[in-house]
Amino acid sequence: MDTHVVIMAGGIGSRLWPVSTPSVPKQFIDILGVGRTLLQMTVERFIPVCKMENFWVVTSEKYVDMVHDQLPDIPEEHILAEPEARNTAPCIAYACWKISSVNPESNIVVTPADALVLNTSKFTEVMKRALSYTESHDSIVTVGIVPSRPETGYGYICASEISEENIVKVSSFKEKPDLPTAKYYIGEGCYFWNAGIFVWNACTISSQFRRFAPQIASVMDEMSVYFGTETEQEAVRKLFPSCEKISIDYAIMEKSDDIYVISADLGWSDLGSWGSVGSYMHKDSEGNAIVGRDVRMFGSKNCIVHDDSDEMVVIDGLDGYIVAHKGNRLLICRISEEQKIKDYSAK
Amino acid sequence: MDTHVVIMAGGIGSRLWPVSTPSVPKQFIDILGVGRTLLQMTVERFIPVCKMENFWVVTSEKYVDMVHDQLPDIPEEHILAEPEARNTAPCIAYACWKISSVNPESNIVVTPADALVLNTSKFTEVMKRALSYTESHDSIVTVGIVPSRPETGYGYICASEISEENIVKVSSFKEKPDLPTAKYYIGEGCYFWNAGIFVWNACTISSQFRRFAPQIASVMDEMSVYFGTETEQEAVRKLFPSCEKISIDYAIMEKSDDIYVISADLGWSDLGSWGSVGSYMHKDSEGNAIVGRDVRMFGSKNCIVHDDSDEMVVIDGLDGYIVAHKGNRLLICRISEEQKIKDYSAK
Repeated sequence: MDTHVVIMAGGIGSRLWPVSTPSVPKQFIDILGVGRTLLQMTVERFIPVCKMENFWVVTSEKYVDMVHDQLPDIPEEHILAEPEARNTAPCIAYACWKISSVNPESNIVVTPADALVLNTSKFTEVMKRALSYTESHDSIVTVGIVPSRPETGYGYICASEISEENIVKVSSFKEKPDLPTAKYYIGEGCYFWNAGIFVWNACTISSQFRRFAPQIASVMDEMSVYFGTETEQEAVRKLFPSCEKISIDYAIMEKSDDIYVISADLGWSDLGSWGSVGSYMHKDSEGNAIVGRDVRMFGSKNCIVHDDSDEMVVIDGLDGYIVAHKGNRLLICRISEEQKIKDYSAK
Repeated sequence: MDTHVVIMAGGIGSRLWPVSTPSVPKQFIDILGVGRTLLQMTVERFIPVCKMENFWVVTSEKYVDMVHDQLPDIPEEHILAEPEARNTAPCIAYACWKISSVNPESNIVVTPADALVLNTSKFTEVMKRALSYTESHDSIVTVGIVPSRPETGYGYICASEISEENIVKVSSFKEKPDLPTAKYYIGEGCYFWNAGIFVWNACTISSQFRRFAPQIASVMDEMSVYFGTETEQEAVRKLFPSCEKISIDYAIMEKSDDIYVISADLGWSDLGSWGSVGSYMHKDSEGNAIVGRDVRMFGSKNCIVHDDSDEMVVIDGLDGYIVAHKGNRLLICRISEEQKIKDYSAK
C-alpha cells in the first residue's frame, strides 16, 4: 500500500500567545528557535515513511499560502483548505476521502502539525510498525506515549495489557485527568499519553466514518463528486461547513472497539504551553531559554524569552517569567501563571 | 527691560532609556502621560513672564525640526542649532549673544527643557522677583529648590543666610553629595537643590563670560559678526565647535562671587530617572504608573510602565518593576536597579 501522511494544521495555539496568534499560529512558528517551524519539523519526521508527493496538509483557508511557503515541495493541490473549522473529524474525513479518490488502497497516518518528537529514529520505527499493521488489518492504530510525569494536560489511552512497543488493543480513551487520577494512571503502567496520531488504511477510515459519523461520511460522499473538477473548492465551501462539528475522538475513537495502540518513549510533547516549550529549549547557564535577535539578560534566571520583533530586549532581575513579544503584543507573566495566557489572548 | 527665556534642549536623557533615546530625548517626550512634552510644559511655565516671540531654544542640529513641530509659535530663527554639544557654557553664551544682538537691554532666564515644576503659580512669582532684581542689579540670580529629602542626585546651592523666598547671596555651589553630606545639608536649612535655572541681564552675562570664560566670549564675538546674515549658520558650524567644552557651573557659577539665590518650594524635579518620573505620574489603586495605549495589569503593583509603541501589553505578577518600551527597544528592570539603565543604553 501507498503511505500518505495527513497533517492537521488548522489550530490556533492560544496558550503560546502572543507569539502564536490566530494570524500566525504556533505550527507556523520556529517556537524553539531551531531554524524550522513545527510544521516543517513534522514533515521531516515523516520523510522516512512517506514520499513527498504523498503528504497532505489540512488547514484553514487563510493559512494556505503560509503552508505553501513553508512546504514548497508538497504538491499545491495537497494543501486542503477548510472553509471553516469544524474540529478534527470533518478535517480528517476530508483528507482521507481525497486520498481515497486518488488511491483507495492507501495507508494513512494522521498527525497534528504542532507537536515535538525528540526520538525521531524510534518514531520512524513505530510508524513503520503501525503502517505495516494497518496494511493487513482493518483497524485503527493510535500512538501512546510512555508518560514521564502525571501530566493533567493530556488525554490518556488505556491499553488492555502492558506491552511496550507492541501493538495491543485499546481498552478506553481517557479525558484530561485530575492530578490524583493522573498519578494513578502513571502507577498502573498501561496508560499512555494520547499523541493524537492515528494510523489506518483508507478503507478502515471510510467504514468507521460510515458507521459512527454517517452525517460526515454523507457530506464527504457529496463533496467527493467534485474532487478534481474546477468547482471542487466551490463545493467544499458550500458543503464542508454542513459537517457536524466534532472531534475525531468523540466521533470515532471513543465509539469504535477495534482500536489498537503502539506505545513508546518518543520524547514527545504537544508544546502546548510556554512551560513545555521552555523545557525543550536550549538554556543558558542561568536556566534562561531565549529566542530573539538581541536579548540581554542581567541577574535573571529560569525565564523563557521569545522576541519575534527583531528588538533589543534588556531584562534585569526576573526569575521564572515568560517574556513573549511579537507584532504589537507584549506579555510578561510568571511561568507558574501560564494557564491565564489563554484568557489574555481572548481579550 | 524685555524678558527673554532661553531653553536648553540638547540633552540625551539616557537614564530614561529606552523611551528617551539620542534620537528622541526625554524633553521631546510626554514622559508623564499628560498630553504634553516636557519641552512644551517648560514653555507654558514661562508664558506668564515672557512673550512668545522672546523664547529661544538651543538644541542639537538634529532636534531643530522636532522643536519646531512641538513649539510652532516660537519664531523659527529663535531655534538655535549647536553643530556639536560643547556643554552648557557655550550653549548659553550663544543664545545670550544672539539676544544681545537683538536688544542689549534684555533680561534673560536660562532653563533646562526637561524638568518638572508642579507649583507653577509660585514659580511665576519667583521668576518675576528674580527678573525684577536683575533688571536693576548686574548680578546672577539662581533658583534654589527647598529640598524635601537628602537627595544625592542633585547639586546643592549653599545660601549665605536662611531666608526663604528672598533673594540672598550664594556662599557656594556643591556637587552631588554622598548621603551623610546630603543629610547634613538638609539639617542646616540653607542648602537648596540647584535647579539649573539662571536669571541675569544681557550685560551681566557678557561681562561674566568675558571675565571668567574669555575663550568662549571671544568665539561668540567672532560668531556675532555673522548674526542675521546669510552665512550665519555656516559661521556657527565653523566657530562654535572651537568653544571650550565646559558647563556653566564650572565656567562661571563657581568662579563668580556676585551670585544670588531665590529659594522656594516649587514641587520641582529634574525627572532624571524612572523612579522620579513614576513618583509624579498618576497611579492606579495598586500603585502602578502607566503610560500606554493598551496596558493591562494583573496581580502587579508599584510598577512604572511606559509603552510608546502603541502595543497591547499584558503584565502579570510584577512588583516594583520598570517596563519601558519604545521603537525596537524593550527594558524590564527593577526600579531599585534603575542606576544600571544608563549603562544598558550605552551598549
